[in-house]
Amino acid sequence: MPSKPEPCFLNASQAAGAIKTGALTSEALVRSCLDRIEARDPDVKAWLHVDPDYAIRQAREIDKRPAVHPLHGLPFGVKDIMDTADMPTTQNAAFYQDHRPTLDAACVAIVRKLGSVILGKTDTVEYASNGRKAATRNPFNLAHTPGGSSSGSGAAVGDFQVPLAFGTQTAGSLIRPASFNGVYGLKPSWGVVSREGVTQFSTLLDTVGWYGRSVDDLELVASAFQLPGLGDVGAPSPSALRVAFCETPYWERAEPASRIATETAAKRLSEAGAKVQRLGLPEAFAGLADAQATVMYGEGRAAFLPQYLIEKDAMHPEFVLTAAGKRGVTPERLREAYDLADTCRRQFDALCSDFDVVLAPAAAGEAPEGLHTVGDWIFNGFWTLLHVPCLAVPATKGAKGLPIGIQLVGPRLSDARLLAIAGTLAPLIDVEGEGRLKSLLAA
Amino acid sequence: MPSKPEPCFLNASQAAGAIKTGALTSEALVRSCLDRIEARDPDVKAWLHVDPDYAIRQAREIDKRPAVHPLHGLPFGVKDIMDTADMPTTQNAAFYQDHRPTLDAACVAIVRKLGSVILGKTDTVEYASNGRKAATRNPFNLAHTPGGSSSGSGAAVGDFQVPLAFGTQTAGSLIRPASFNGVYGLKPSWGVVSREGVTQFSTLLDTVGWYGRSVDDLELVASAFQLPGLGDVGAPSPSALRVAFCETPYWERAEPASRIATETAAKRLSEAGAKVQRLGLPEAFAGLADAQATVMYGEGRAAFLPQYLIEKDAMHPEFVLTAAGKRGVTPERLREAYDLADTCRRQFDALCSDFDVVLAPAAAGEAPEGLHTVGDWIFNGFWTLLHVPCLAVPATKGAKGLPIGIQLVGPRLSDARLLAIAGTLAPLIDVEGEGRLKSLLAA
Repeated sequence: MPSKPEPCFLNASQAAGAIKTGALTSEALVRSCLDRIEARDPDVKAWLHVDPDYAIRQAREIDKRPAVHPLHGLPFGVKDIMDTADMPTTQNAAFYQDHRPTLDAACVAIVRKLGSVILGKTDTVEYASNGRKAATRNPFNLAHTPGGSSSGSGAAVGDFQVPLAFGTQTAGSLIRPASFNGVYGLKPSWGVVSREGVTQFSTLLDTVGWYGRSVDDLELVASAFQLPGLGDVGAPSPSALRVAFCETPYWERAEPASRIATETAAKRLSEAGAKVQRLGLPEAFAGLADAQATVMYGEGRAAFLPQYLIEKDAMHPEFVLTAAGKRGVTPERLREAYDLADTCRRQFDALCSDFDVVLAPAAAGEAPEGLHTVGDWIFNGFWTLLHVPCLAVPATKGAKGLPIGIQLVGPRLSDARLLAIAGTLAPLIDVEGEGRLKSLLAA
Repeated sequence: MPSKPEPCFLNASQAAGAIKTGALTSEALVRSCLDRIEARDPDVKAWLHVDPDYAIRQAREIDKRPAVHPLHGLPFGVKDIMDTADMPTTQNAAFYQDHRPTLDAACVAIVRKLGSVILGKTDTVEYASNGRKAATRNPFNLAHTPGGSSSGSGAAVGDFQVPLAFGTQTAGSLIRPASFNGVYGLKPSWGVVSREGVTQFSTLLDTVGWYGRSVDDLELVASAFQLPGLGDVGAPSPSALRVAFCETPYWERAEPASRIATETAAKRLSEAGAKVQRLGLPEAFAGLADAQATVMYGEGRAAFLPQYLIEKDAMHPEFVLTAAGKRGVTPERLREAYDLADTCRRQFDALCSDFDVVLAPAAAGEAPEGLHTVGDWIFNGFWTLLHVPCLAVPATKGAKGLPIGIQLVGPRLSDARLLAIAGTLAPLIDVEGEGRLKSLLAA
């Protein structure tokens, strides 16, 4: 590694600082990211669309304008289920290969307005759902999946090709890839970030979030979305924090690597003075994983119906099943799933009053081998259904040498507080930081 | 009225029958609707965009194709917050006057695929929210509002300019205009119709629905959306039905006209043999109207943030308040509103087990005078928050000579059953039917 790192190796908040002082221009940062993409993307395949000349032109224009926000000049990757007025939006679906929206999705419009350079579109599982997988490979081992459906966004940030990127989560599409790619990720509380212009799958579940390489990065984007309470909460000291170690009802699905990661994180926090206690969730929570699937496929029927009517024969069989209502979801089952979720949401918020933050696995284990899978979302779907904010923090490496994260979780709409707490806890959990970059560069 | 009515005076299911037998072509029906629009729309102002030549070209193409669905050849009005690939989509907002989407909204794509002629775009309250009102006037008295935000859709169907039209409901934007314009309307259960390509306001509330001039019309569109259970439920006899007359917690806000309409409907059903009983909702339900507003404005913050950042100074002050989070909605209040709604949803479904259908006011009264208002949505917002299907049926005329409807309500996801029950009950309630057309033609 060079003594003065290439700009692409800076995380977003570091780069924002350098741009603010004039030590770095957006153009230099964008060029560095483009160089990294050129060098690495033939292997990693995170991007469906990058136009280097256009990215540089955007950066030059931004360099001429005064900064209105720390995002000014920072490159941003956009998951390809999000509309962009100046780039294709293919959803990794044959049907949409030629689709060119005329407006930005709300999330894209916001970061663009605040000065981000929209660097390109990242690969995704088809419609962020089922069907065709992304071509993206895990930057830490190309034979492994980066996870999905936010495959390209997670891999591109993990591989230092872009400091920030949008993802979405309906089951486990944001937090799981964060864990697999050694990056930070925030799935905000449901409803606090607009989904306008983002392809819909499940109305009750779909959530727009983002990746960065530090809690500060995540907070920087959160400030663009004006999440309530940001800045009101000071950084707590570790010894003032009560951490709930939560195995979740699905601990038996956790591989040793993920168990070790979560337990190691708990140990590090405890050693730093935090009060770590076990939190057992009530019996009813064991039904949430099934309820999440019921809601996702039940609501997905409406989402995939237009295409089912228009080009059923060309659809992946997974979507045909969903659109035709052949997933076994009856109105009764769907109502029961809604009711269980409603009950557990309140119960979880109430349980949280005894703790400052919940620590839980971010994924079942290291990224699996092969691109036919995006991994198991058992540790994600039920949190999505609970509508709570989830923040992924890299923790350790597994036996295969791949990153593993944990997630910090708070009650609904406590995103600002969760970010503040994560700001204190993440440096204690993510002790490898620099190590990930070194292992990538050595690879 | 001519002995053989002009095709525009046929309701959708009648027209579908005539098209099926070859007695009517889509072109003839579309031409008749266009004539009616030409004659009436200078006064009613229901439409933001109609291209007669293009509509006729669509109809001619459809007349060449085999019918795949009863919607084949029927003209459809589309609320202008819904994307159309071949027409502007302005949202009645200055910001979007030049907006031309490249894809249809999901609901538009579905009816288009099934053979509907997209006749044009109907006027709406700005973003189906606050701000600029539609220019549309009530066809029964041009000095009165048609209601909103689905102003143009309700008025166009009520004025026989188009047999079917889409609306949306976040507070009372679909059912209230149905009542004001003497038409039938279905706000389906939340989540059963895709909102893809429809401008977003509140994630938990926004619901796509439609207008027609009979229950059969509503069912015809419901079949396009493959609502679960359609066709499984036979038409019940009135005497087999238990009807819950529900004043709701807001009865003191009902004007005499609306009280009389609801009571008259109850009396007619009782006389026809239905078992009508009073249903008092539990105390907690009185908080639902406030909770609906809290959710709508709390989630609206995210919806209007992009524009707030991009062109705050040009925004209507109502949107500035919402986007800046100045509606008094804190995370705590929002969470409480979510929790109350969750509790009441389950309670309402449980209460419904004692009844087949709930009868309630559709609006506070007749359409108010003036276009500065769209009327009071107190009898709608809480049902929207409960996610239950609501079906508006015209009932009587008020003292000002304007139509008044009632609504039939069922538990969540019982849309198919609600349609079947309404098919039995509506002819008993809506005894004026033809009278509305006569009073329009006499006006």
